[in-house]
Amino acid sequence: MSDMELKPIGILHCGLHSRADTPKSTNESKEQGIIEIYPEYEAGLDGISRGDKIMVLFWFNQARRDTLRVHPRGETNRPMRGVFATHSPMRPNPIAVSELKVLKVTGHNLEVAGLDAMDQTPVLDIKKSLDD
Amino acid sequence: MSDMELKPIGILHCGLHSRADTPKSTNESKEQGIIEIYPEYEAGLDGISRGDKIMVLFWFNQARRDTLRVHPRGETNRPMRGVFATHSPMRPNPIAVSELKVLKVTGHNLEVAGLDAMDQTPVLDIKKSLDD
Repeated sequence: MSDMELKPIGILHCGLHSRADTPKSTNESKEQGIIEIYPEYEAGLDGISRGDKIMVLFWFNQARRDTLRVHPRGETNRPMRGVFATHSPMRPNPIAVSELKVLKVTGHNLEVAGLDAMDQTPVLDIKKSLDD
Repeated sequence: MSDMELKPIGILHCGLHSRADTPKSTNESKEQGIIEIYPEYEAGLDGISRGDKIMVLFWFNQARRDTLRVHPRGETNRPMRGVFATHSPMRPNPIAVSELKVLKVTGHNLEVAGLDAMDQTPVLDIKKSLDD
């Protein structure tokens, strides 16, 4: 494994199956789903509980990586802009950062709300929102 | 290249050369430095300018990837906790998320403030903070 190779720590299960159905940001979303953390990473969840806000990093495995300019929010009437000035899923490293709310923790499954990612999206990292 | 292999888009230049000197979060930092974006990714910066707030994803290439439990903030008098419940640099995918302020843009160099990452840290992504 190269030292810049990602290891998926889990996978998202939810009802979002197409880009058209998927909210463009977590602020616009009430979607709920399950983040399944693979058993070998379960110890990393210790300290996360119901009601917590978490930052979740997803790998947008369906997004193009060779695009550097896009229309913001895909609205073609708006001028193109560099991808780093947008939250487009298209970017050299298609990592999305979502702020989610934990509704329930059951073993290595987190029930969450606020999803802006599609079913079967790989999960890279979780960071609980706190001052620690 | 595997489809989960990261491509560094740039590198950080700053005066932080040891972990002990490096602030543990951007809220605690006034450190300034330069994010050098590699020329082939410069088009992605179009739309970022002085005064913008940006989210920057760094690859903490010196952090251990095989640790799932840590003392919060390295304070050994505090109980250990899962890495996903902390912002420790140690985690299976050592990606850090920093909120920085852009002081100046010169070609493919961004002068930024609020750093909590060390000199020579690889940069993975930038997302301008906005509603787009």
